[in-house]
Amino acid sequence: TLWSLILVCLLVYAVLKFNSTMSHPLLPSTSFSDLLPAKNGEEPTMQFLLEVVDILTNYIRKTFDRSTKVLDFHHPHQLLEGMEGFNLELSDQPESLEQILVDCRDTLKYGVRTGHPRFFNQLSTGLDIIGLAGEWLTSTANTNMFTYEIAPVFVLMEQLTLKKMREIIGWPNGEGDGLFSPGGAISNMYSVMIARYKYFPEVKTKGMSAAPRLVLFTSEHSHYSITKAGAALGFGKENGYVPLFVNATAGTTVYGAFDPINDIADICEKYNLWLHVDGAWGGGLLMSRRHRHKLSGVERANSVTWNPHKMMGVPLQCSAILVREKGILQGCNSMCAGYLFQPDKQYDVTYDTGDKAIQCGRHVDIFKFWLMWKAKGTVGFEQHIDRCLELSEYLYNKIKNRPGYEMVFQGEPQHTNVCFWYIPPSMRNMPDGEERRERLHKVAPKIKAMMMESGTTMVGYQPQGDKVNFFRMVISNHAATRSDIDFLIDEIERLGHDL
Amino acid sequence: TLWSLILVCLLVYAVLKFNSTMSHPLLPSTSFSDLLPAKNGEEPTMQFLLEVVDILTNYIRKTFDRSTKVLDFHHPHQLLEGMEGFNLELSDQPESLEQILVDCRDTLKYGVRTGHPRFFNQLSTGLDIIGLAGEWLTSTANTNMFTYEIAPVFVLMEQLTLKKMREIIGWPNGEGDGLFSPGGAISNMYSVMIARYKYFPEVKTKGMSAAPRLVLFTSEHSHYSITKAGAALGFGKENGYVPLFVNATAGTTVYGAFDPINDIADICEKYNLWLHVDGAWGGGLLMSRRHRHKLSGVERANSVTWNPHKMMGVPLQCSAILVREKGILQGCNSMCAGYLFQPDKQYDVTYDTGDKAIQCGRHVDIFKFWLMWKAKGTVGFEQHIDRCLELSEYLYNKIKNRPGYEMVFQGEPQHTNVCFWYIPPSMRNMPDGEERRERLHKVAPKIKAMMMESGTTMVGYQPQGDKVNFFRMVISNHAATRSDIDFLIDEIERLGHDL
Repeated sequence: TLWSLILVCLLVYAVLKFNSTMSHPLLPSTSFSDLLPAKNGEEPTMQFLLEVVDILTNYIRKTFDRSTKVLDFHHPHQLLEGMEGFNLELSDQPESLEQILVDCRDTLKYGVRTGHPRFFNQLSTGLDIIGLAGEWLTSTANTNMFTYEIAPVFVLMEQLTLKKMREIIGWPNGEGDGLFSPGGAISNMYSVMIARYKYFPEVKTKGMSAAPRLVLFTSEHSHYSITKAGAALGFGKENGYVPLFVNATAGTTVYGAFDPINDIADICEKYNLWLHVDGAWGGGLLMSRRHRHKLSGVERANSVTWNPHKMMGVPLQCSAILVREKGILQGCNSMCAGYLFQPDKQYDVTYDTGDKAIQCGRHVDIFKFWLMWKAKGTVGFEQHIDRCLELSEYLYNKIKNRPGYEMVFQGEPQHTNVCFWYIPPSMRNMPDGEERRERLHKVAPKIKAMMMESGTTMVGYQPQGDKVNFFRMVISNHAATRSDIDFLIDEIERLGHDL
Repeated sequence: TLWSLILVCLLVYAVLKFNSTMSHPLLPSTSFSDLLPAKNGEEPTMQFLLEVVDILTNYIRKTFDRSTKVLDFHHPHQLLEGMEGFNLELSDQPESLEQILVDCRDTLKYGVRTGHPRFFNQLSTGLDIIGLAGEWLTSTANTNMFTYEIAPVFVLMEQLTLKKMREIIGWPNGEGDGLFSPGGAISNMYSVMIARYKYFPEVKTKGMSAAPRLVLFTSEHSHYSITKAGAALGFGKENGYVPLFVNATAGTTVYGAFDPINDIADICEKYNLWLHVDGAWGGGLLMSRRHRHKLSGVERANSVTWNPHKMMGVPLQCSAILVREKGILQGCNSMCAGYLFQPDKQYDVTYDTGDKAIQCGRHVDIFKFWLMWKAKGTVGFEQHIDRCLELSEYLYNKIKNRPGYEMVFQGEPQHTNVCFWYIPPSMRNMPDGEERRERLHKVAPKIKAMMMESGTTMVGYQPQGDKVNFFRMVISNHAATRSDIDFLIDEIERLGHDL
């Protein structure tokens, strides 16, 4: 009996262990129609969601593991033809939940791990766990920012966070206005619209013909969204007409350069022009006592674009347009739709934001950012930014005099952008000239293609003006360390050595 | 020893049970800096995420339980002053993860359950479990639609889904183009931009002054986003100039009315005008063999807005702009930014979508929709839509001759919109006139306010033209049943009886 009892003990242990591991797998025949709101749908719903979470947490675990590839590259035609068991085509009949889980796994398998410590391809990189939790909650709440009525907590979070951002910009008492928009391009478009409304309010009802021909000023290196906004809003890009708006870029996309805001503000004040600061990329530096001087004069701007989804590591999408003058956003965009923004609600309707926006429905982009701010504090963002800039300084110092590297612009980078050419040994003694330029132009694309095929790391490249293709390294990923920078350089040399 | 062994058995059982229930709760001192990418961050990360999921699954469970309130209403000043333990203010120093979990719980507690079977307040209602899983995965993948390079799977899913939608619209072979945009208002804005580009391409570079004064046509009941687009893009709203664009609404916001697309298309063809169909709300009916005739002629449109996040129950945001002519979206919006859309990539770069969009970064809105389509099949969407329309028919038949109810428009609703006045007993014998109108105008807001205070259900109201405030009931929630409709009517009568 003693042994049989030990046996029972082990059995109990085994059963429980098994139970807690498997937690009732979904039956193969279960389909979407068994889930909530179906009768008795609670159990399959919880099972299904926990299986999805299991897939996601495994993905997250592996994303931070450097032995995992950044991507498993396939050409469009390969994915379209269908990988083993993964078919992108939609059909008339439902799939089982078992197949849906396989689809989820495969979607991640053939995607790109933008949170991987060696993913440096875009301005937005990294996977912040708090931000991620915030997004999961946001999608569970599944609501809309247009009224306090259906998003009371989120509307207030947006208001408080925008005020805090305006305080950091330096507007007195954080006064002013703002909104989160679906990205920097739309935020920049808002700035142009508001500027036009400020000087020529009659355009709202009478169209562009009510104003003289207007001109927007922006630098050659500024983001193309300013030109896009000009085209969309009916400005065109002609010269010789009435100046309206000046965009100063705080952190250009390629070089990470900061326009001298104070100098530009002097001119704008003198000629009564709207000053917009596009800090989509560089705005985050305002959080750092060490680096915020690069935006000095930003408090003189009439409007500022600032994307927490870039330098501050917030998951996509999270972009703010901030406006110094209160009320103008409403004036510019309101259409007073009675079916949404009833004046006779039981609460203070000035909290309804919908009539300020060019959107009607507006996704909740605030919560993840608010939650990250709670979890990290202002100091946490500062540390993140200082660390990224230190890393790029490390990269700059590592390669500036290294054989085979040429820097694209002189001097230390102002942001985390480090722009450089890698010169393969076979080209190092070539005289300058068209032949060398042509060959060099092909080096970065070739290395990038090999990187993607081998899946080890990803970094961007582009030409700029008369400069042939060069690498643009940017660091916003909080998972990256010096060893990852070293790895990138080793990898460029390994792949480019024989070109 | 026999007893001690039994005791050991029970002990093992208890420990395991405890373990599986508690699964290592987070230590009170754990903070964001202990999570990945921190060294040994894997365990706390998994614990934290599972605790978040626990909060979310409890929320979901309760959302579908009719004994749960739809909302726990508080005024803005109450939430701003801070509820017990819930403080919206941001601070310099980090909070513990324990507090972050409390914040998550409270955020949901003071929010609105848009997935509750008795939430009828907006065009977008309901919480689809597959769609939710899709959103969780999307935020874990945290990438950007602008290039195939970093969103290979999602870009292809978008392409295939848009093609399928164009086939359903009835364009030959599903040819054409399109994009998912951050909502119907932006989709409608795209349509106006493309129309202008089609007839006056020089506006892109020369501004509105390169075109004659142009006019957009849309009905009085159409969505305000058409007027907003006109204002933003520099048209204004003057009469007497050159017609360019006609918007036909398929499912107006308040009445759910469908414009006669074929008749409008005849005129557009005769005068060579751009025909846009705003099917943000009504587009979903294309999925139903029984109801798609309401959009007949839609295949003659030049562009169509269709929001799966409304009638098809997809989580917010999910809106498509579909364009019949291939290439025009690119022509209209391209700015050829070399740093994003390099022509010398190793894959077929026609899959890069960024230069078609007015956005730069673009959130992944496709996956949840694609996953729902996989799980439900085309037939699943059809069933959902037919069911919602049946429910609204049930409501219409229930109240059309019921004492105390007056319908706002005559005849059966075309969509799920049922618009009605509730007349409290005290008003039923009042003669028509200004006094009655004034009193009636206040009835819906009062009932709505009481509904929100008691948290039992939510339905919208608004005035329209010369009609005083009336209820607009809409059904897109797949959790709603006849008993919920009955409940709504009982609740209106309970709350409004003594007014």
